[in-house]
Amino acid sequence: MRWWGWGLGERRIPLTPGFERWLATALELDGAVRAPVELDAIALEPTALAARARERLEASVGPGWVRADDVTRISHSAGKSYLDLVRMRAGTPQGAVDAVVYPASHEEVLAVLAACAAERVAVVPFGGGTSIVGGLAPLRGDQDAVISLDLARVAGILAVDGPSLTVSVAAGTRAPVLEAALAEHDLTLGHYPDSFEFASVGGCAATRSVGQASSGYGRIDQAVQGVRLATPRGELSSAALPASAAGPALRELLVGSEGVLGVITGLLLRVRMRPARHRYEGVVFDDFPTAVEAMRIAVQDRATPDVVRLTDVPQTRLLMAAGESGGRRAPLGRQFLRSRRGVLVIVGWEGQLDAVDRRRLHTMTLLRRGGGDAIGETAGRAWSATRFAPPYVRDELLDRGVLVDQFETATTWTGVEALRTAVTGAIANALAARGTPALVGCQISHVYLTGASLTFTVLARAQPGEEEPQWRAAKDAASATITAAGATISHHHGIGRDHADWVGAELGPLGSSSLAALKAHLDPTGVMNPGKLIPAL
Amino acid sequence: MRWWGWGLGERRIPLTPGFERWLATALELDGAVRAPVELDAIALEPTALAARARERLEASVGPGWVRADDVTRISHSAGKSYLDLVRMRAGTPQGAVDAVVYPASHEEVLAVLAACAAERVAVVPFGGGTSIVGGLAPLRGDQDAVISLDLARVAGILAVDGPSLTVSVAAGTRAPVLEAALAEHDLTLGHYPDSFEFASVGGCAATRSVGQASSGYGRIDQAVQGVRLATPRGELSSAALPASAAGPALRELLVGSEGVLGVITGLLLRVRMRPARHRYEGVVFDDFPTAVEAMRIAVQDRATPDVVRLTDVPQTRLLMAAGESGGRRAPLGRQFLRSRRGVLVIVGWEGQLDAVDRRRLHTMTLLRRGGGDAIGETAGRAWSATRFAPPYVRDELLDRGVLVDQFETATTWTGVEALRTAVTGAIANALAARGTPALVGCQISHVYLTGASLTFTVLARAQPGEEEPQWRAAKDAASATITAAGATISHHHGIGRDHADWVGAELGPLGSSSLAALKAHLDPTGVMNPGKLIPAL
Repeated sequence: MRWWGWGLGERRIPLTPGFERWLATALELDGAVRAPVELDAIALEPTALAARARERLEASVGPGWVRADDVTRISHSAGKSYLDLVRMRAGTPQGAVDAVVYPASHEEVLAVLAACAAERVAVVPFGGGTSIVGGLAPLRGDQDAVISLDLARVAGILAVDGPSLTVSVAAGTRAPVLEAALAEHDLTLGHYPDSFEFASVGGCAATRSVGQASSGYGRIDQAVQGVRLATPRGELSSAALPASAAGPALRELLVGSEGVLGVITGLLLRVRMRPARHRYEGVVFDDFPTAVEAMRIAVQDRATPDVVRLTDVPQTRLLMAAGESGGRRAPLGRQFLRSRRGVLVIVGWEGQLDAVDRRRLHTMTLLRRGGGDAIGETAGRAWSATRFAPPYVRDELLDRGVLVDQFETATTWTGVEALRTAVTGAIANALAARGTPALVGCQISHVYLTGASLTFTVLARAQPGEEEPQWRAAKDAASATITAAGATISHHHGIGRDHADWVGAELGPLGSSSLAALKAHLDPTGVMNPGKLIPAL
Repeated sequence: MRWWGWGLGERRIPLTPGFERWLATALELDGAVRAPVELDAIALEPTALAARARERLEASVGPGWVRADDVTRISHSAGKSYLDLVRMRAGTPQGAVDAVVYPASHEEVLAVLAACAAERVAVVPFGGGTSIVGGLAPLRGDQDAVISLDLARVAGILAVDGPSLTVSVAAGTRAPVLEAALAEHDLTLGHYPDSFEFASVGGCAATRSVGQASSGYGRIDQAVQGVRLATPRGELSSAALPASAAGPALRELLVGSEGVLGVITGLLLRVRMRPARHRYEGVVFDDFPTAVEAMRIAVQDRATPDVVRLTDVPQTRLLMAAGESGGRRAPLGRQFLRSRRGVLVIVGWEGQLDAVDRRRLHTMTLLRRGGGDAIGETAGRAWSATRFAPPYVRDELLDRGVLVDQFETATTWTGVEALRTAVTGAIANALAARGTPALVGCQISHVYLTGASLTFTVLARAQPGEEEPQWRAAKDAASATITAAGATISHHHGIGRDHADWVGAELGPLGSSSLAALKAHLDPTGVMNPGKLIPAL
């Protein structure tokens, strides 16, 4: 993936001229286009990896698989968060890893971790490199050096059990590779995070990721049946079972562990039969609360669609302007405007032919009863065609000097509207106070019996040279509001470094120290991903 | 509950004369009836609770709420496992707790635990007293005394959020009390373990219990959204949220913790709308593998019934003989015999009126396609009428000198038949080798996308004076076979003492030591339920 942005090679998704004009007005942009610096403009510190440590790592993985050239180091020294990209584009990353190590197996990972523990080298596990919460920051804690442990070679489908709907897969396998392999068995994992094109399955499990169709297929933590973890103390594997009452669920400690306890090297995943049919369509409502209430009733009546994108008025306007769902001049845009409604909901079902019809009828009956009007498949096709576009669009926005990010959380149904209002207001106020008025939209993308996720899209004119304090003002305002409401600091991005100062409120002092105690047991010298996830005590 | 068996007061569920004759023949019984000893025949050791410890406990909960009379001590010194009852009936319990303490609140529980940690007193949390895996054995580990901490007064419904389908409840609340309170809001938890009449909700969560309708409503661990735990180090509470990506799931450490980390004092539970209708019915198949395959296909096509009781040939014969599902001479018995099929499956749906019909049609279409014949609601009504009878029937069997127990596990769909055969054979061989031929039946009672639970019912003539080695021979044979197959040592009974020697194989050495490290952090002096759950390292 390109080191300063998203995507491979020359692939870009340009803004439409209309959206560009709309944004320039709304955000008071200056119209200038800023390119990222050239790679050789970045001055890296020399590697701090001692010769003995390097030798031991090379003994673990083979001499060709420990690399310390600039391109490799830089491309493994950040994820893809707004701040990561701002820093990379300016040629000022937050330091760099001292080397990148490429083990080829669980056993090689164990050997690398043992070497690092002995040689005082911190380890940042690297799957798809798509973290947007600082999970890949090259922090060494109190160690002498830091490596990126790239799992690209720990890859492959190990076994498929069709009748039991499970697949055993090595953790570095990319999500699209897994889907392609499952397709040959007429199976699917159905896990499509926005980062799908690059994500590794181990990374998804390590960060508790959620896909665009997770209302139907479930979160990754619901798909994980078993985890194999390599730790500095050896192997820790949870049993791979449909269900168990054998005490606390180890699996749920390893899922979401973000590399601080060890490295996930293998997974047993629940899969599904590959759908014969996808149907995505649009439903319009007057306003967000009405749409939320209709959706709540549908979900609680067992009529949950597989895909839900329920946008509020500002987010709907933004989607229309961006053309992500068709554009004002596109058929959908015209159709939506004709409906004279305020919000758009994309709903989708996947499955066997008759099952899609049966389930769709059930959901749509309830949404109509709740005040929704179906506007057909144009909206669904527009969403589907651009479902992996957002990170590409972000690069275009960064070119134009736009602060762009998504903050997300989850709460109970009764808490949704108050939280949406509070977080939207807090972000808007924080940015307005800096003289950079913001567009803040909200979307429900995942629904549960008891509540829903809320994702806030934030756009504002970036303050050149002040991007980090500006972003932090917005982020802190959102995080403080979320925490005060008792909602979760992350529903699907994970903790990484960006939420590590906030997660303590959610875990409580004894919860935080319990995680730290567990880490101390599995990683006694503290080499595993220091500074991430576990709050300072 | 009566100290030597199940149920309140004089309530009994006598065996039918036909079943009694059938059993006597099959198990070579002598026809004698053995009554339990009188309570005053049990000689207890004097309480080992030091005066200072007792004073401190009384200061924590009030002087009337620390009790050490014989009846209270005896009734809190065992659960309701086969061995527990055999020992109690013989007047030879495995020791006794030194006192029973009744705190009234989370804060009082914290005070009790602090007192116990300071005074070297072990704590066995006591909810409904229904453990069948030795979870209530009065073990003191290396402490000077042991108390039972009865949560009966930490009870009550704290809050109901109807639109979010959640209830906040104190842990000592009995399951039937919670259901009655929820009924007033037109809600239900839908959690009906065999122990429902006496179980506490905290006990259900602490042991990861599963209810008879859990294929539909979910296991208790799927219903728990948040847990409040009192530990010797203070409060540890997991956030109460629909879903989160905020690192490892603390909730999943506290659920299933069986009192070894602390005491669950409160829960936020997901509930459901109260069903307007229940429909339970019977389907017959030629044999178990055919029925399993039909059920697998239905479950994987999203046609899971809420209730599934899929019995193999021996278990079906046993049910017919016992009359649990109607008896040979009852309408169901005649109906089943007329069908000339080998196995009976009870399936049930609960919900709104049209939803039950719609879901039933879907399931039944697939079961018929898989070789099933519907035999109507007589079978369903017979099951429903006797769904909480088994522990009462067990008392009758104990009166007649019968070894009776259920061993259970879960595995993947592809593993079901081989595991059923292996475990059935292992139990039968172990008991036959002692000259006590056994009846061993198997039932699938909970189904998942990737697999199912297997519950083995074992009946044999008990060997007087040798009940424990006889039982252990059967139990060890079953456990060794389950473990060797990589299946779970418990799908719904928990670990307690009886599975503590086996769970290590499932957790692995590092998994076991991780739980021990976590326990050492939360319970540094080791007072919490010593000897349970965590395998010896």
